[in-house]
Amino acid sequence: MKILIVGAFGTIGSAVHNDLASRHEIITAGRNGADLTVDIRSPESISAMYQRAGKVDAVINTAGDAHFGSLLELTPELNEIAILSKLKGQINLVLLGMHHVNDHGSFTLTSGIVMDDPIKGGASAAMAGGAVRAFVQSAAIEMPRGIRINHVSPTLLEESISTYGPYFPGFEPVPARRVVQAYRKSVEGSQTGQTYTVY
Amino acid sequence: MKILIVGAFGTIGSAVHNDLASRHEIITAGRNGADLTVDIRSPESISAMYQRAGKVDAVINTAGDAHFGSLLELTPELNEIAILSKLKGQINLVLLGMHHVNDHGSFTLTSGIVMDDPIKGGASAAMAGGAVRAFVQSAAIEMPRGIRINHVSPTLLEESISTYGPYFPGFEPVPARRVVQAYRKSVEGSQTGQTYTVY
Ligand SMILES: NC(=O)c1ccc[n+]([C@@H]2O[C@H](COP(=O)([O-])OP(=O)(O)OC[C@H]3O[C@@H](n4cnc5c(N)ncnc54)[C@H](OP(=O)(O)O)[C@@H]3O)[C@@H](O)[C@H]2O)c1
Ligand SMILES: NC(=O)c1ccc[n+]([C@@H]2O[C@H](COP(=O)([O-])OP(=O)(O)OC[C@H]3O[C@@H](n4cnc5c(N)ncnc54)[C@H](OP(=O)(O)O)[C@@H]3O)[C@@H](O)[C@H]2O)c1
Repeated sequence: MKILIVGAFGTIGSAVHNDLASRHEIITAGRNGADLTVDIRSPESISAMYQRAGKVDAVINTAGDAHFGSLLELTPELNEIAILSKLKGQINLVLLGMHHVNDHGSFTLTSGIVMDDPIKGGASAAMAGGAVRAFVQSAAIEMPRGIRINHVSPTLLEESISTYGPYFPGFEPVPARRVVQAYRKSVEGSQTGQTYTVY
Repeated sequence: MKILIVGAFGTIGSAVHNDLASRHEIITAGRNGADLTVDIRSPESISAMYQRAGKVDAVINTAGDAHFGSLLELTPELNEIAILSKLKGQINLVLLGMHHVNDHGSFTLTSGIVMDDPIKGGASAAMAGGAVRAFVQSAAIEMPRGIRINHVSPTLLEESISTYGPYFPGFEPVPARRVVQAYRKSVEGSQTGQTYTVY
């Protein structure tokens, strides 16, 4: 398959890339150093990326930002970080990409455990994850030409303990290689509308 | 209690208003004809409303728009209707209202069945509902001064069959008076972080 990975150099994206590259043709996308430059916060940038990518069989997105911090200090402006990136960025990759994906292709987005298991400081990321889950489940019943759509909701990765560990007391981290399997299931399997939780 | 109802003249809002008014002091808010004029799409408008409302014991929101229509025709622009109103509008009512709610007060937002039980044309509304659910569950653990937050997820109302009926084949409509009970439970009860489904 020809697979477009957006966010291919991040913690999750690079692990997914490493695994899939042995069996598929990969096009990487991201803000820096990828085959295709894209900022998912901009619909124009997303459309330009798809124009350059040509038709693909699968789109995986592992890019997405959110502000982590006390709810008391969460302003509409800080909440906008997640809305622009993790929420609208991911959904616009689907809305603008549908016609660039081959018949029976797939989209795989990324949410995260905080939408199910709240942590202090995680309300904005939870919001984005919850939006992605409901959108995926709903969009799945309307995708054209047998195109599938799923998302992966990882818990804290072992590889990210140094960055996010303090936010997740008592959460059992998982190695990236386990998370990668969920993306593989979404791309190489046949299910649609699914939330693949890795926790 | 002193209760601010945003969207107080809508189908759900007016039913909630009728019920609560017999036991509480109500302030209505909305774009037209209410005690306080507000457009929840604008953070400035929300802040101005709270300034004029003074301290309240409960905020209920039943306002919120979303585009219903085929996923194939859902553009980022059409999706923005739900993002501005049902999603960010509701969340900003919480972020900007927290300091205007008395100790042990409450917020009650509104989502809807399509986030759980997809319909054709409902992906954008589902997205907003899913965002609200995850935000509510997450925000509940960080609310200051014993303030609670819940949301009500109604199925199609009997009173809305003429407007939305064709989108909901096989869904069993409920009378507004049943939906009202969920708002009452949220405001007069003691739970927090809950999704009150009325289906
Ligand atoms: N790591 C975890 O433990 C964990 C757990 C649960 C969920 N998640 C979720 O999984 C996703 C990825 O996490 P991660 O830890 O792999 O993140 P990461 O290491 O920060 O990687 C994110 C990648 O996306 C790119 N990117 C960021 N913003 C972008 C934008 N606007 N447009 C295009 N590319 C962009 C980044 O590259 P450039 O900056 O060069 O563009 C980077 O390659 C996030 O949504 C995160 O919330 C992560
Ligand atoms: N009715 C149903 O069967 C049903 C089922 C499930 C979920 N829901 C959800 O419940 C919510 C309310 O539904 P409804 O049927 O009661 O809607 P509705 O009858 O259209 O009432 C909406 C109310 O909110 C006000 N409003 C709309 N946009 C606003 C804005 N930007 N700022 C301030 N006020 C605004 C409207 O008044 P103005 O236009 O004068 O401002 C009106 O009073 C929606 O989120 C809907 O998706 C409804």
